[in-house]
Amino acid sequence: MNDAGDIVLVPIGHVDSALTDLDDAPRQGDEGAPDAWVVVNPDVAAALLGTEVGDEVVIITWLDRAQRDVLVTHPRGDTSRPESGVFATRAPDRPNPIGLHLARVVEIDANRVRVDRLEAIDGTPVLDLKPMLASPDRR
Amino acid sequence: MNDAGDIVLVPIGHVDSALTDLDDAPRQGDEGAPDAWVVVNPDVAAALLGTEVGDEVVIITWLDRAQRDVLVTHPRGDTSRPESGVFATRAPDRPNPIGLHLARVVEIDANRVRVDRLEAIDGTPVLDLKPMLASPDRR
Repeated sequence: MNDAGDIVLVPIGHVDSALTDLDDAPRQGDEGAPDAWVVVNPDVAAALLGTEVGDEVVIITWLDRAQRDVLVTHPRGDTSRPESGVFATRAPDRPNPIGLHLARVVEIDANRVRVDRLEAIDGTPVLDLKPMLASPDRR
Repeated sequence: MNDAGDIVLVPIGHVDSALTDLDDAPRQGDEGAPDAWVVVNPDVAAALLGTEVGDEVVIITWLDRAQRDVLVTHPRGDTSRPESGVFATRAPDRPNPIGLHLARVVEIDANRVRVDRLEAIDGTPVLDLKPMLASPDRR
């Protein structure tokens, strides 16, 4: 925390993707997201030990283009749909725009991890990487 | 971001739970976690609109007791098990100790949401609340 009691995060890496335009990004990873690399910073790359091809992972990102002052929204910007609070949606605009992305590891090259689908755009900061469902031997 | 380029988060609420001792907390929500309240701060409570009893949600917490300088660990502190990088485990100690908790909403009382299981201890800051699997009508 900083002196004000806020929580300070430092990215552990970033997304390296062919997706560069927010307008081209699918809303969810299962809606046509391309494969992409998660590039982990060298200073924390030791934390990848044990991550393997085939692992189902949760990639936690910081959606740095999102608006943080939105509390209520029309889902997908469709004004014909009733308003919903952002905590009841997966909309990126929310007080703490944390993105959760489910994907499978398809390649590991030193500090870079390629996953089979990721709807975050190129350059998106990555905050954490976890196994999706902790199998008992990883608990 | 702050001037240093770090990411600053402000909790949207906190956990109100009978679990007060880290040593009593189960490692995962499906290992005997009690029900608990997620108390949402009044200034962002409007974002709960549309959250309903029965919803399966992801509660994102800030594990404020965790150590952030741990990169490699023995799973569950068991030194008989091989070391693993923290990105390959769900261990709370990691560079950005973000907790992901799956639960079902069982009661809503104004700005408080009771869920059926939560392994975070009393007072844990809450960063976000999302539907677990976005059903198509919430996308």
